[in-house]
Amino acid sequence: MSAQKIHVIKIGGKLINDSEALERFLTMVASETDDRVVIVHGGGRKATELSALLGIPTRMVEGRRITDADTLDIAVMVYAGLINKNIVARLQKIGIKCIGLTGADGNLIRSRKRKVEDIDFGFVGDVEEINTLLLTMLLNAQLTPVLCAITHDRKGQLLNTNADTIAAQIAIALAVEYEVSLKYCFEYKGVLFDVSTPDLTIKNIATPELDELIENGTINAGMIPKLSNGFDALNGGVAEVFICGVANLWSLENATRLKL
Amino acid sequence: MSAQKIHVIKIGGKLINDSEALERFLTMVASETDDRVVIVHGGGRKATELSALLGIPTRMVEGRRITDADTLDIAVMVYAGLINKNIVARLQKIGIKCIGLTGADGNLIRSRKRKVEDIDFGFVGDVEEINTLLLTMLLNAQLTPVLCAITHDRKGQLLNTNADTIAAQIAIALAVEYEVSLKYCFEYKGVLFDVSTPDLTIKNIATPELDELIENGTINAGMIPKLSNGFDALNGGVAEVFICGVANLWSLENATRLKL
Repeated sequence: MSAQKIHVIKIGGKLINDSEALERFLTMVASETDDRVVIVHGGGRKATELSALLGIPTRMVEGRRITDADTLDIAVMVYAGLINKNIVARLQKIGIKCIGLTGADGNLIRSRKRKVEDIDFGFVGDVEEINTLLLTMLLNAQLTPVLCAITHDRKGQLLNTNADTIAAQIAIALAVEYEVSLKYCFEYKGVLFDVSTPDLTIKNIATPELDELIENGTINAGMIPKLSNGFDALNGGVAEVFICGVANLWSLENATRLKL
Repeated sequence: MSAQKIHVIKIGGKLINDSEALERFLTMVASETDDRVVIVHGGGRKATELSALLGIPTRMVEGRRITDADTLDIAVMVYAGLINKNIVARLQKIGIKCIGLTGADGNLIRSRKRKVEDIDFGFVGDVEEINTLLLTMLLNAQLTPVLCAITHDRKGQLLNTNADTIAAQIAIALAVEYEVSLKYCFEYKGVLFDVSTPDLTIKNIATPELDELIENGTINAGMIPKLSNGFDALNGGVAEVFICGVANLWSLENATRLKL
């Protein structure tokens, strides 16, 4: 008997910030009814906007947010509150039974505060353990989990965590029981050779090609952590990993497939 | 066979705003391990603080918050995000397996946007239906639900809802299966005759006494909706309703008991 298929779909900040694009994404998710789905969302841009309104400076190092106590509160409010609950309400409207969770809820994702080395990232967590039992219980109850990038250390501390990493780790945890398809859904149909030609995507990226694409500058710094997480997922037993857009979420036409 | 006992405990804004009082409350909840617990929390004061920081005016009518679109976003961020997830993380630390939810999650609480009559309350919802099946599933999985006062209309709209009412409606829904004790936990040990004598509490309030206590001004305007929700719960099959503090949450010494 082959394992049941499940799609772990991560949606990025630009899609979330654009209300119409988000609606198209959610409708697209709802159009695939046979397989099970887990949604993971980011939302960094909205957190940056709220920080600015509150006069709290946003500090990014290597694309990662430095998370002091105030910034953590903002991340929790925006990711776990505003974005997560609006996605949940909109999915319920279009008939997707779903439940929005952080990693603290049901101890779904336990993480460890990142050690201070060259940079003190503050309240940033690296994933240590996924509660697969809880995920399975929710999926068996026909609920679609909608996960945001807030985790906890089980010692009372919430931690800000990279959403791409959470998607990969959730995919790896589910790969024990399911045939997992991990999809990083963003504003283009796939990884581009050049942003000036958004229809021209790279169809496949394998590890040796990756090094070359990074070296010659085709792949920019922002894409590298996503690809790195994608390869982690493949190495962790995930069946397939794609970088795609909303329009080709299911057709995967011109999407970028990662290959070991 | 008698029904299993469950405690629906609502904690109010003043306790939530005081970090030490909240810690005492959570520790107190954890000290009662035999019976099942559902926690419902408010948090209006933090929402008011954030509104002030963002320059959004807070308008209250008859103790109820007028909820325009900006105020709803703030309520969702503060109730469903900041307060709910911090309570969840702190409970997990002290060994309470719990899950934080809004009414939109799993369609737990469906409400209807309040009709505009004399006052337009905005995005305020009145409870219409509780998903008892989901609550029971979570309780059977040994998870303590931590509920905030955000609901949805199942048409994509989140709605701000009175936390006292949610506690009463959750208690009524659970009364079909459980022996429910509903506890409104606030900053005093019970309803006071006079705030200048905080140890002197009213031990029992029955409906006829209530009218008298309101008429002679002993019970102030802020307490009336809480008592009204409490009597609704008793009429709806809830076994017992108390107004109490943190210290007497389980002993119920000097707590106020509502009686039909």
